[in-house]
Order: sequence, then structure tokens, then C-alpha cells
Amino acid sequence: MKLATYKDGSRDGQLVVVSRDLSTAHYATDIANQLQQVLDDWNFISPQLQDLYDALNRVSETPSSVGLARHAFPFDPLQCMAPLPRAYQWAGSSAYVNHLALLRQASGLELAQNFSTEPLMYQGASDNFSGPCDALPCASEAQGIDFEAQVAVITGDVPLGASPAQALDGIRLVLLANQLNLRHLMATELSTGFGFIQSKPVAAFTPVAVTLDEFGYSADSAWNKGRLNLTLQCNWNGRKVGRCEAGPEMTFHFGQLITHLCKTRQLRAGTLVGSGPVSNQDASRGYSCIAEKRALETIQDGQPSTAFMQFGDTLRIEMKGRDGASVFGAIEQEIVPLESVATKRVATARQAGAGSS
Amino acid sequence: MKLATYKDGSRDGQLVVVSRDLSTAHYATDIANQLQQVLDDWNFISPQLQDLYDALNRVSETPSSVGLARHAFPFDPLQCMAPLPRAYQWAGSSAYVNHLALLRQASGLELAQNFSTEPLMYQGASDNFSGPCDALPCASEAQGIDFEAQVAVITGDVPLGASPAQALDGIRLVLLANQLNLRHLMATELSTGFGFIQSKPVAAFTPVAVTLDEFGYSADSAWNKGRLNLTLQCNWNGRKVGRCEAGPEMTFHFGQLITHLCKTRQLRAGTLVGSGPVSNQDASRGYSCIAEKRALETIQDGQPSTAFMQFGDTLRIEMKGRDGASVFGAIEQEIVPLESVATKRVATARQAGAGSS
Repeated sequence: MKLATYKDGSRDGQLVVVSRDLSTAHYATDIANQLQQVLDDWNFISPQLQDLYDALNRVSETPSSVGLARHAFPFDPLQCMAPLPRAYQWAGSSAYVNHLALLRQASGLELAQNFSTEPLMYQGASDNFSGPCDALPCASEAQGIDFEAQVAVITGDVPLGASPAQALDGIRLVLLANQLNLRHLMATELSTGFGFIQSKPVAAFTPVAVTLDEFGYSADSAWNKGRLNLTLQCNWNGRKVGRCEAGPEMTFHFGQLITHLCKTRQLRAGTLVGSGPVSNQDASRGYSCIAEKRALETIQDGQPSTAFMQFGDTLRIEMKGRDGASVFGAIEQEIVPLESVATKRVATARQAGAGSS
Repeated sequence: MKLATYKDGSRDGQLVVVSRDLSTAHYATDIANQLQQVLDDWNFISPQLQDLYDALNRVSETPSSVGLARHAFPFDPLQCMAPLPRAYQWAGSSAYVNHLALLRQASGLELAQNFSTEPLMYQGASDNFSGPCDALPCASEAQGIDFEAQVAVITGDVPLGASPAQALDGIRLVLLANQLNLRHLMATELSTGFGFIQSKPVAAFTPVAVTLDEFGYSADSAWNKGRLNLTLQCNWNGRKVGRCEAGPEMTFHFGQLITHLCKTRQLRAGTLVGSGPVSNQDASRGYSCIAEKRALETIQDGQPSTAFMQFGDTLRIEMKGRDGASVFGAIEQEIVPLESVATKRVATARQAGAGSS
């Protein structure tokens, strides 16, 4: 099934069930108001959502059928917050070692000895995720604004010390993410050893998160043993910049990432784990973050020629299923100057004031 | 006012208001069920809690008075979860530069050039906090089990780019924390630059969190401009090991820590910020984490003589006000082997099974 969260002015939004083809939606109000509630009590609540999802798909295919889905409406990604608008945990990774190797080589750094056995992971900010079509306000273009298109999963409870196989059982939903990066703030933070506080300010997510059964259970299913074997499409200012395969070159699959994360502690329901930028050795497939393109340029030409993002730049991140249809909907974001957000807020307040006077 | 969260079998527990002297408590049920709700809507909800708190203090002082607090009961820290049992953000710091300097010196490392102008902070795990009297299960004594006794604050919303003065306005509650550390896993994680995933598995908090007005508003108040001028008491296996002053040597006050955290992003309500281990230059005041004691020994004798914690070790962290009374209640924890928790869980399940058969 496919789940989304609609904006309603609250911090957590309203849970909606979305039809497989992303055409129609239905509030899940009588079942659960927020996705976190569903994750907290998955075995009890998710079958009820599944019934609504099945009814909704019938409406979407045969508009005369109604059943449970009597208040279906056209699905609009513009109304979406992140499926989990705020979460108790967001752990990012660098699971495609090709990406890591290129960035280190370009910086003249060696890979750690255990780079292929121990995944690199960081604890990310999760108090304020960005919706799929929300603008990304940045203070300055000089900070080196970059995206990181990736696959992410949302887990249920995972016990301390879970094996990769057990960890895979803990995965409830899959979605795509865009981790905003401020590259010029990163070297200082890496040098502290303490991780990223300012250089990875916010992550955005696709309109819908999807349960694993959507991908089927055969040996050649798109979701297979913790890897999603589909192509990640990445457009920057309307130009195709990335068509990377997310599956085969994911050095650490999601089960392994989660095992690394829960080695000394249990994980609670609603934990988000990101793969890090999808990266392929075949450079003709493009890139899922600008830093990787610049690393390639540096290795080839001695210096990067592609600039980081500027205000007004747009981004589109999407993944098509084997039927050619969008699986998660698209992340479509614009980089905007921080002041414009503040100005807009003042203008809106003035308008509201004028209206009421 | 003083707020706590009682265990009720749910993930978030039940909000209770606790009297100033920590003797009595009252469920806040008619006002709010969880602390996060209060933080989400502080200006509307907190005055109602204040009324209940005032009534409760009258009951506690004059047992015949009742008023709003008609269902008061004796406060029991054993029933407490962390005031926020799970949170959307936990950012730890190393705000006492003395601590940092000693650890680096003992490791033969130099301090970063900006160590006195840029605070060291990390994004910590916040999906599963430990209650004040909960056991701390650890997989192995060989991981270098250590505590970190510290002061922490809980914020409301803080805008991107807030100044230290604005950041101080965003602080809603103060409490104490114990960050569990697995020291022998730390060097590897520091070397990645990506921060702590396995070596800081869980944080625990005092029974109550306290609003700033409890400390008064005079020029010599205990809470003054982002620093808490009281003594942090730290007992390990019943021995006094730390009596450090939390105020004067806090290199970066909480306003400065929050400013560092919100430089490139806004912070949402319910963000927890920790000071890192309280540390004084006067070594006779003892220590708030074993690593610092070991660093001192290494500097003096060439090697550490104090071992890290073992299973069965106990810890007590508390702070007294100027009236000699406990401000937050005490963190009282025991280090237990992970297997004992699993065994106890099986035993409890068996008992429950036997009871129902």
C-alpha cells in the first residue's frame, strides 16, 4: 500500500492512503490520524489501512465502485508533507562505496581500511523534514548547496543486535529522499569527528511511502533482500543528470545498514534509514549529487567545473516501476534564498491583517 | 513548574505535574497527556499546567488544601520515564572545554584551532531514552562502559539563525542527563568524521524537567544567561566521584550551543540539547565521566588506573538547589548485562502466561 501525509496546518499532518497509480487518495481518519501511530502499532492498524487501500484501488480503476472509499479525492502531491513530517530517528549512510571512493580520491584522502565491511553512517536531523514540493530555503549560495538523491526505509521496532535478515523483517516502508547538503561547511564538521550539525540541514521525502509487498515477492522482484532494483531519476533544472541503478552497486543493503545501527541499541518504530547518494561505476549513468560530479571532474581535469546549486535552481527526483509508472511520486524542489521566505511570511501576515481590518 | 512522565505501558507515557519539593504529583490528563503536546503548544497549555502546579504546591505544603489538585498522589521516581521518553532531536555537546582539553592531551591530540569559538556538537539518538531509574543494558564490559553526567535543556521552536539571546528565549525546560558511552567503540567512529552511531547508545534523564522561573530572575539566580550555577553531584557505586560546578566553567552557554545548532536550520519544539560532561579545572572537584579521570591519570602517570564500569555498577546523578533540596530528582541507574534483560523478559512472559492459564 501507499501512504502519504497531507498538510492541515498541524505539525504532523493527516494520514492519507493513496491509490497504487497515485491518482486518488482517502483520509485514513477513522483508522489513524498520523503515520507514526501506524508504525507504533503496525500489526493492528496496517490491515485496516490495507482494506481502505484495496477499496481505493478499485475506485481508481472503476470509478463507479465505492465500498470503503466513499470519500476518495484526486491525490495532489503539492498538499503533501513528508510521509513522516518529523521523526524520532533519521540515520543517513554512504552505502554506495563508489560514491565514497570518488569523493575521497578527489580530496586526496585514502579510504578507511574497513570501508567495504563497515558502513559509514551518521545520525541526522529529524525534527523538521521538508515536504516533497516544499522550497528549500538556504542562507547563502556560498555554502555549496547540493542535493543527495537516495533510497530510504522506515522501520518498526528492531531489537539490539539484530542480524541483517532480522533487520530486513523490521522494514515497514520504502521511499525516496533528498538530503540537502552545504558542502563548504562539511570539511570543518568532518574534521571534528562529531558528524554533521550544520552541513546537512534538512532532508525531504517523496509524497508517498510504499510497503514492500508493492514490489512483489518473486526472485526477480524490484525489492530484493534489502536492495531496490530500479533506476533513480534525477533532474537538475530540467536536465537529466542522473539515471543510476539503485540495486546492484549498493555495497551495504538496508539489512546491513540497520544491523550496523542497532549493534549497541534497539531501534524504535519510525526510524528512517537513508542509503546515501545512489552511485554507479559507469559514469555515463550520471550522478545523484553534485559533489560526485565535481569529484570526477577533479580526478580527470585537476579541478571541478560544475558549480553547486544557485537560488532558483530546481530539482526532480523520481523512480519508475517496471510498468513505467511513478512508484513514490516525485520530489520537486526549488532552492530559494532565506530572505524570500521571511519576506513572504511578512507579506502573508500583512495580507491577513489587511483582510481582517 | 516541574513536569514528569509516568510509565503507563505506552511509548510516550502520561504527563504528570510534580510539586516543587518532589513529594506529590498529579496527572495532567485534563490538560495534556504528553509533554510533547505541551511543547508543541506551550503558550496555550503551560499556563493551565502552572495553575495545577500552584494548587499542587499548596497541597504539598498544607495537606488540607485541595483546589484543582484533588487527585494528588505521592510522587515516585521509579514510575518515571524520561520526561520526553522519545524526542525529535537530541544534540549533545562538549561545552566544557576543560574536559575536551584533558581528553585530547591524554590521547596526544591537539585541540582544533577554533576549540574556544566553535562548540563541538553531535546529533544523538533520541528514539528511545532511558528513564531515571531504568537499568542500562550493555552487551559487553569490554566496550568501555562510561557515563556522562550533564545539564540539558528542552527548547520550543527556534528560528534559523537565532542569536544566543534569542536562543535563550527558546528554552522551555532544564533537566539533567546521563549519556551512556562505549569508549572503546569511539575512536573508530571519531575517525570516520561521521559521528557516533554505536558508541553513544542511549541517554537517560532525571525524573523531572523544570521551567526557568523555578530558579528565580535575580542577577545571582542559579540559572543565569544560559548557565546553571549549581553543583552536579555524581556518585559511582555509592562513592562521591564528582562535585563539579556546572556554571562558571561552561565555555559555551546553552544560548551559544543552540545558536550553533540552528545556524543553517530552524529547530522544532522538543529539541533536547546537552552540555556534555560537567568539568572543572580544579581536579579535587572530581569528574562527571570516567574518561576524564582516566585522561588525568594518563597525563600524570603515563597510563590510566581507573577501570570503566562493570555489570552491577551503580550511578547516582543529582543536583541540589541553594535550599539544599533536590531540583530534578536523581538519575539512579545500574549497568546490567544484556542477557539478564532478555532472561527477565522471558520470565515475565512465562509468569504472565502462567497467570492467565
